[in-house]
Amino acid sequence: MERIKRYLRSAAGYQAVCAKWLVLAALVGCVVGPLGGAFGLALNWANATRGAHPWLLYLLPVAGLVIVFLYHRFDPDGGGSTNQIFVSVREHKPLTLRTAPLIFVSTVATHLFGGSSGREGAALLLGGSVSGQLGRALRLENRDCRLMTMCGMAGAFSAIFGTPLAATIFTLEVVDVGSMQYAALLPCLVSALLGVFISGKMGLAPEAFVLQAEAAPTPDNLVRVIILGALLAALSIFFCELLHVTPKLYRKFFPNIYLRVAAGGVLIIALTKLLGTTDYNGAGAAVIEAAIDGEAVPYAFLLKMLFTALTLGAGFKGGEIVPIFFTGATFGCVAAPLLGLPPQLGAALGMVALFCGCTNSPLASICLAIEVFGGQCVSLFALACAVSYMLSSYFSLYREQHFLHSKL
Amino acid sequence: MERIKRYLRSAAGYQAVCAKWLVLAALVGCVVGPLGGAFGLALNWANATRGAHPWLLYLLPVAGLVIVFLYHRFDPDGGGSTNQIFVSVREHKPLTLRTAPLIFVSTVATHLFGGSSGREGAALLLGGSVSGQLGRALRLENRDCRLMTMCGMAGAFSAIFGTPLAATIFTLEVVDVGSMQYAALLPCLVSALLGVFISGKMGLAPEAFVLQAEAAPTPDNLVRVIILGALLAALSIFFCELLHVTPKLYRKFFPNIYLRVAAGGVLIIALTKLLGTTDYNGAGAAVIEAAIDGEAVPYAFLLKMLFTALTLGAGFKGGEIVPIFFTGATFGCVAAPLLGLPPQLGAALGMVALFCGCTNSPLASICLAIEVFGGQCVSLFALACAVSYMLSSYFSLYREQHFLHSKL
Repeated sequence: MERIKRYLRSAAGYQAVCAKWLVLAALVGCVVGPLGGAFGLALNWANATRGAHPWLLYLLPVAGLVIVFLYHRFDPDGGGSTNQIFVSVREHKPLTLRTAPLIFVSTVATHLFGGSSGREGAALLLGGSVSGQLGRALRLENRDCRLMTMCGMAGAFSAIFGTPLAATIFTLEVVDVGSMQYAALLPCLVSALLGVFISGKMGLAPEAFVLQAEAAPTPDNLVRVIILGALLAALSIFFCELLHVTPKLYRKFFPNIYLRVAAGGVLIIALTKLLGTTDYNGAGAAVIEAAIDGEAVPYAFLLKMLFTALTLGAGFKGGEIVPIFFTGATFGCVAAPLLGLPPQLGAALGMVALFCGCTNSPLASICLAIEVFGGQCVSLFALACAVSYMLSSYFSLYREQHFLHSKL
Repeated sequence: MERIKRYLRSAAGYQAVCAKWLVLAALVGCVVGPLGGAFGLALNWANATRGAHPWLLYLLPVAGLVIVFLYHRFDPDGGGSTNQIFVSVREHKPLTLRTAPLIFVSTVATHLFGGSSGREGAALLLGGSVSGQLGRALRLENRDCRLMTMCGMAGAFSAIFGTPLAATIFTLEVVDVGSMQYAALLPCLVSALLGVFISGKMGLAPEAFVLQAEAAPTPDNLVRVIILGALLAALSIFFCELLHVTPKLYRKFFPNIYLRVAAGGVLIIALTKLLGTTDYNGAGAAVIEAAIDGEAVPYAFLLKMLFTALTLGAGFKGGEIVPIFFTGATFGCVAAPLLGLPPQLGAALGMVALFCGCTNSPLASICLAIEVFGGQCVSLFALACAVSYMLSSYFSLYREQHFLHSKL
């Protein structure tokens, strides 16, 4: 009981820190929530507008030139890569404020004119830069600015994707795999919960699907899921390497950055015309939905990887996560029936486990599965993620991701 | 692509390690699953039998003498404390095989004769000792024996409680808070999934409740949940300290271990007769269920803490987790309406967030909420756990738990 007395003396300190972070995190949520909501609505508008006006695709090379010009002129060092946020968190260096408008405009432009990219990576930069600078404006010390950056990442990710828990755990887990900074748990969660509440009020619907087919966790289904997880691990390695290698190839053939992005735009236009479908342009939400309902083209996952690598490698902007969902869902939908699993479940497992393999964040992936699929088949999702994590080796979407423990 | 070629050369290594652990983890699951199932069924039988024959309570002091004799004679160093498993995992030292039958028999006896205790802590010892010795019998190296111990912990916890994901994450998270040994994720999960599958086949039903009242994650409800979480943090500190202080008081007044356990038994009998109810003897599953349905006595949480501290402090055996569920659920059920939350939701939040405050394992607590309450209100559970984690300071049920990062 002596320890309780000691605690009571220090309790005021705990409560003060807790109250301070509740206020700061709520502030971040109220700032990045509307930003993330606006970003999500803008991206939905961009994808819908391109659907209604297919000729917008022909302006993709021009959009690329503008994007490259903006980055070259205003942020030559940063460059709008998701790796920036890793460095910011690890080295306690807030991102510049101009990171936010740059990534906002360039990602919306990429989607509007038919490039293939995501939005979560962009949301991390958007939220992280604004909240980090907010911390600086409030004259917080470096350590606190870092936590503010993390709150902004979680808040914006949650606002745009509607998954507060996954956004929080992803932020805690992804930078240094194996270390859990639980001190950031409450602040990030509060920002994430407010972020999704605000973006919901703005009319942005959270990502949520109902699985049309389930499977019991019987030993034979566990074996099937393990095999599917292993295939997804291999696919995640291929995806990560493709995204790392494409920029090098582009640089080799097109040393000039303007020529490079224009060539990328032309390549996307040519491929789109060749295939005669716009399924692989923009976010591809309709294709992901169809896959989770059990319908996918067998080669869709290959084409999506190609489109995404060509888009991001050329200098267009946006995240990698929605393309990962597209790739994983279409692959899983096709592969699952070969293993004796329902295609709908395969698509869902593919989406989540490919995310896990590419980002090395198994707990965030499991939370994502729970929030997106409402807790159905949670043990199968966990198993697919665990296998995908182990077999994906140290390959990662993020060059700046560190591993604290051996995977084996 | 050079890295992929390198990987392909090392891929056989990854696959071999993965296959090795799939086999070993399945083996552990097949061994500890039936053990955990039998343990759960025996405890259900013990609680039902005591319900049918209330006179068994009068034999509690005698049962205590037998338990103390068994430990004194066969395991004077270990003593059947959950801390043993922490030391075993941290120091790569498998538990002795006799740990298993001792904790099995003494926990069942504690429940049968009306002591107040849990079963998960006991299940961790049961599973961990058997699987650690299995590793030694297979002549695995120390590091692998440690992982075998962890598989056994996850497998037995999952078998007895029906929550494979929470069992896995708890095992990964609880020993060194802040460090996530993801290399253990797949093996522990496989053991846990097989464990629950086997115990299910043996007729042990998993813990699962349907929340009769939900609440939306609106800002005012978030504030209510934060306040409830703070109250639960304070309660967790009190609970932990009570469990640490009672053995010291017992030792002071009854230096002889036999006299001590007999006195403890007599105290439990006297208290039971004084109160005229057996609600606080054994596991108390019916009271937990009633609380989650919205009914609880206002002082039930205090009495359950007292009964549990008197039982375990005297030398009786069993875990602390089910008493935590009882305490948290009855407290939350009574406190929630005062804050404007439904009592059913308050009971559920109380159960999970008190567990989080006492064990400092927020992710396992969130997984527990998802598995026990089927994914309802997951963001509110996460918030209550995050607050309870932060404000519970470094108090812990487990003396041997270490923290790698500062909580603030």
